[in-house]
Amino acid sequence: MTPLAPGSTIGILGGGQLGRMLAMAAARLGFDCHIYTPEADSCAARVSARQTVAAFEDERALAAFAKSVHAITYEFENVPAATAAVLEASGAPVSPGAKSLAVAQDRVVEKAFFASIGVATAPFARVDSRGDLDDALKRIGAPSILKTRRLGYDGKGQARIASAGDADNAYAAIAAAPAILEGMVKFEREISVIAARGQDRAFAAFDVCENEHNGGILSLTRAPARVNAPVTESAVAATRTLMDALDHVGVLAVEFFLLPDGALLANEFAPRVHNSGHWTEDACLTSQFEQHIRAIAGWPLGPTTRFADAEMHNLIGDDVGLWAHYASDPKAHLHLYGKGEARAGRKMGHVTRLTPRN
Amino acid sequence: MTPLAPGSTIGILGGGQLGRMLAMAAARLGFDCHIYTPEADSCAARVSARQTVAAFEDERALAAFAKSVHAITYEFENVPAATAAVLEASGAPVSPGAKSLAVAQDRVVEKAFFASIGVATAPFARVDSRGDLDDALKRIGAPSILKTRRLGYDGKGQARIASAGDADNAYAAIAAAPAILEGMVKFEREISVIAARGQDRAFAAFDVCENEHNGGILSLTRAPARVNAPVTESAVAATRTLMDALDHVGVLAVEFFLLPDGALLANEFAPRVHNSGHWTEDACLTSQFEQHIRAIAGWPLGPTTRFADAEMHNLIGDDVGLWAHYASDPKAHLHLYGKGEARAGRKMGHVTRLTPRN
Repeated sequence: MTPLAPGSTIGILGGGQLGRMLAMAAARLGFDCHIYTPEADSCAARVSARQTVAAFEDERALAAFAKSVHAITYEFENVPAATAAVLEASGAPVSPGAKSLAVAQDRVVEKAFFASIGVATAPFARVDSRGDLDDALKRIGAPSILKTRRLGYDGKGQARIASAGDADNAYAAIAAAPAILEGMVKFEREISVIAARGQDRAFAAFDVCENEHNGGILSLTRAPARVNAPVTESAVAATRTLMDALDHVGVLAVEFFLLPDGALLANEFAPRVHNSGHWTEDACLTSQFEQHIRAIAGWPLGPTTRFADAEMHNLIGDDVGLWAHYASDPKAHLHLYGKGEARAGRKMGHVTRLTPRN
Repeated sequence: MTPLAPGSTIGILGGGQLGRMLAMAAARLGFDCHIYTPEADSCAARVSARQTVAAFEDERALAAFAKSVHAITYEFENVPAATAAVLEASGAPVSPGAKSLAVAQDRVVEKAFFASIGVATAPFARVDSRGDLDDALKRIGAPSILKTRRLGYDGKGQARIASAGDADNAYAAIAAAPAILEGMVKFEREISVIAARGQDRAFAAFDVCENEHNGGILSLTRAPARVNAPVTESAVAATRTLMDALDHVGVLAVEFFLLPDGALLANEFAPRVHNSGHWTEDACLTSQFEQHIRAIAGWPLGPTTRFADAEMHNLIGDDVGLWAHYASDPKAHLHLYGKGEARAGRKMGHVTRLTPRN
């Protein structure tokens, strides 16, 4: 593909904070953005040239949207396959492609895909019935975690199983949806790799970072991760293998567990910019958002050089009430998403603290 | 003033690239922006939540705009005084205030103001008639430069006078407008100070930078300026004196000539973010755009720490056609303004090259 010329319009599916930060990165490169979202007054639309407020199932609105833009991307992996198909049929290139979406949308397919490319994961089993869950528990044991195959995020659609006696409750908790049982591993650290792959198949990873979760939601990311060189090399190599196997174009994030013995297990991936990559905007020459826009626009990837150590804290729900505190902290880069209501668990912003490398 | 809470709306007069970059900085802090501009489809409106397209003389539109926002600022100093008065009467705070605008809009008033606060300038004389020009030339001599008092920018409204014989042509060139004659000084370097003053009267300057012009338009800015410590201290002190005397709130830029003997002469100031401060977005912990939004929103100023040496080139007119070249240069941060037509002399974007400090 010829690089998309500045002045072109990029269509973004989804109106949340990732769409907002993608839109601002695109604007800096001279692109207009058109946000497609079911949500009126979305925070991404408020920094974009155009918006369509319509359901993801509205084929007429999707076709009109596709005709109005020169390239399409998305801020979340749960874009319905039918939606992506309508867009692709309309002619505007959609990146990342259908394979990245299909694999990321289903935890069983995702884990099997990791296995097929030689990337280790925790033990897992497909659970289509209550009986399957008993069989899976016999094989994998407890503690383990039962997750819906589809549409889970930030710890939603999950139930922990401490012992076989929890099986009934867990199965009820996920409403008997098609599921996966995953063995819980004792990990020393959770790390993630944010990387990009261009239309020219170039690959560029940001420095590996480490994450802390709280109640299933990312709380803190530290870059660089406190891990040794073989671990970072192995994590980046697995990410590259995955992106090549998906023929992925754009940014992608893989979360890994680092075990006490140094082994790495892939947990999951997101075929998009990722919360654990927000620090790149403040600490790197190219942010994950600009990198994604470069990739899907057919531009060369930018340098991922990190010029400072970084710590990113999410501002979740009421945390955003601390904005005045962070505004006064000379070490804090404050990012607020312009969302109205600070509901519990809602990501309202983040703060990056930098320590220059010297 | 209580700091303006995120979610509030900031009104920006003007729809050009400075308004665009201000709007994006405001969005990052969680503000919505409302652009007021006579220009349909302005590049600032395309990254903002709201816009009003109306003339600066349209008092009804101004009043409605003022009612819809919580704070007002501007991206250019030639906001008509009547416009500012209508806005102020509507109740929304306008920063910087009327004094900064009044002094900046008139070159004679500006030069006299510098003199009144003990900041040296080149010799100047007010020219209200052809006879005044002869008197001024007798006093100041040639080479000198005749400039309209109002509405000049990027070298427009100016005529050089190499010898007294050029007086007729020069006077015709500026269409006999009220003018100022300024002695041309042989300078070694042109430098500028970009600084901010908060509503709490706190002051913070970015590192002094140096500028090269081409055809009256800024071509290149280098940070830091290659000048010694007494020069930077003197330039920053003069800027602070000016901002205090204006009771300025927001960012302000002062251009100085550095003479071979080390003396500094103030050339002019702009009561706003400035082209020679664009490098701060890529090289400093806080950009001039965020700093301005912080100041006018009553937030504390951010740290101006510079973490890299920077060189900023303007992309003027057809230069923007080189976007693919800059997109491939790993040392170049490309900023494009999303303007349609690349007319000669039009500022279309800029490129910052960073050299990390180590």
